[in-house]
Amino acid sequence: MSKLVIVGTVAFDAIETPFGKTDKILGGAATFIGLAASHFNVDSSIVSIVGGDFPQEYLDSLENRNIDISGVEIVKEGKTFFWSGKYHNDMNSRDTLITELNVLADFNPVVPQEYRDAEIVMLGNLHPAVQQSVLNQMSAKPKLVILDTMNFWMDSALDDLHNVIKNVDVITINDEEARQLTGEYSLVVAANKIHEMGPKYVVIKKGEHGALLFHNENVFYAPALPLKEVFDPTGAGDTFAGGFAGYIAKTGDISFENMKNAVIYGSTLASFCVEKFGTERMESLTSQEVHKRLQQFKDLTQFDIKLT
Amino acid sequence: MSKLVIVGTVAFDAIETPFGKTDKILGGAATFIGLAASHFNVDSSIVSIVGGDFPQEYLDSLENRNIDISGVEIVKEGKTFFWSGKYHNDMNSRDTLITELNVLADFNPVVPQEYRDAEIVMLGNLHPAVQQSVLNQMSAKPKLVILDTMNFWMDSALDDLHNVIKNVDVITINDEEARQLTGEYSLVVAANKIHEMGPKYVVIKKGEHGALLFHNENVFYAPALPLKEVFDPTGAGDTFAGGFAGYIAKTGDISFENMKNAVIYGSTLASFCVEKFGTERMESLTSQEVHKRLQQFKDLTQFDIKLT
Repeated sequence: MSKLVIVGTVAFDAIETPFGKTDKILGGAATFIGLAASHFNVDSSIVSIVGGDFPQEYLDSLENRNIDISGVEIVKEGKTFFWSGKYHNDMNSRDTLITELNVLADFNPVVPQEYRDAEIVMLGNLHPAVQQSVLNQMSAKPKLVILDTMNFWMDSALDDLHNVIKNVDVITINDEEARQLTGEYSLVVAANKIHEMGPKYVVIKKGEHGALLFHNENVFYAPALPLKEVFDPTGAGDTFAGGFAGYIAKTGDISFENMKNAVIYGSTLASFCVEKFGTERMESLTSQEVHKRLQQFKDLTQFDIKLT
Repeated sequence: MSKLVIVGTVAFDAIETPFGKTDKILGGAATFIGLAASHFNVDSSIVSIVGGDFPQEYLDSLENRNIDISGVEIVKEGKTFFWSGKYHNDMNSRDTLITELNVLADFNPVVPQEYRDAEIVMLGNLHPAVQQSVLNQMSAKPKLVILDTMNFWMDSALDDLHNVIKNVDVITINDEEARQLTGEYSLVVAANKIHEMGPKYVVIKKGEHGALLFHNENVFYAPALPLKEVFDPTGAGDTFAGGFAGYIAKTGDISFENMKNAVIYGSTLASFCVEKFGTERMESLTSQEVHKRLQQFKDLTQFDIKLT
């Protein structure tokens, strides 16, 4: 088993979907990543920042899952990062209503000493210069660095983004972002261009259409589980990334064949995440439920054409 | 091996894509279905209609693939159905420039006597009343009836469409059409509603996002092969349906497990269809090429998570 460092936001979210709305609830990329990775009982540490308004019970709930939170800085006089958004009827698009950076504006991540030799580093969506500063603190080159990012940084910090992308092994990005980053419509061509930017592995998330894993000429396609309804998509991409990183950390195997499994685990966990608001479903999730859904993914995708 | 009856258009297409444009070339749903099914060396018959302007060499090229064309009526003084369209840059949408029904306006399909006992019937996209008239001519209830349709008939002949849908076993339809037919956004819920209309099997085609096969609570997901470029999508849906029907006719096995394979064969053949204009790629396709691409589909989708 490998140690896993997770950097990203720990935040308040307020969400509105066609099914209802929430007050401020637990959210943030690192939160969803950590919860997903915790299903593999890995030794993980979240590096983040919150304000004095952040409830101790939220921190406890992470710690209770064996997630180290000594790298979560608490700024007593500050306020926690807050995001509020409203999903449209098709759940594929959303409007951001409020973004209050608060303590995140001055976030200087400090990786705890005992995690600086972690083999796996998961850089959750954040300013790319902040992601890079985490890499700079590692005492040795990690076995695998995974980066998640979004179009916001392509618009506002493209040079910094290119700088950190050079240093990562796996990038997870959605289809529109892959197109924006490369100027290419074909995802195959886009993945090739991203390979040239640094990452040997490119994961393109397509929401309800699943995810593609590219490694040079190799491609793997994991569908999303067809669902009767998506209750709240918030955190699904982070949960996917956390499942991917957690499975890699658990197995310590960074072969392409094993990454296929990591993608399936990521998709499986993400399929639960969207069933309830925020982190609710991920917090109640049992390993029996995960096991059953993995079988559904097998049934969904496996076929038996004999090729001789 | 089962006999296969195919009804649908045999037509002229003129196509414009970002890669170029064609004059009038061979097209039509039954043409693409027949070419795809011919890769399984099944005993198939096309029921259709053309005008006196239709080149004998086109008919010969179908006959040379062992497709019976005795059910293709030739109206000497008439003109062949003509469709012209222009694809947008993303290739996912198109404008119809010209639709000349010509002889198709008075099409009364006549199934050749020796195919009225065919086990498999493929109703290609046509007016639903015409599709029903083919079913009425069968001497016994076929083992499997597959229907393809489109939104045009939902807008203009919904009652007729519901009447024929009642009598089919498999429907192939794209995602937007499934949503239109049922008024449901979720494809899982839409498939359930279509089950209630008659078809025990529902195939929802999602273009570059693959295809879903539903049968009650069972779901199978075949991805589309990620392609560097799509040269011309014309006929891809018909080729998919023809591959599906051809494989079922060849194996005679209508179990859900075997339909998974049929969907993979359909996706495989469709992935070739889009590589060149019109029927060009399908006419040059070899079984070695098909075999190689089936292996790519396996590599693309198969994973090895042990569940005990």
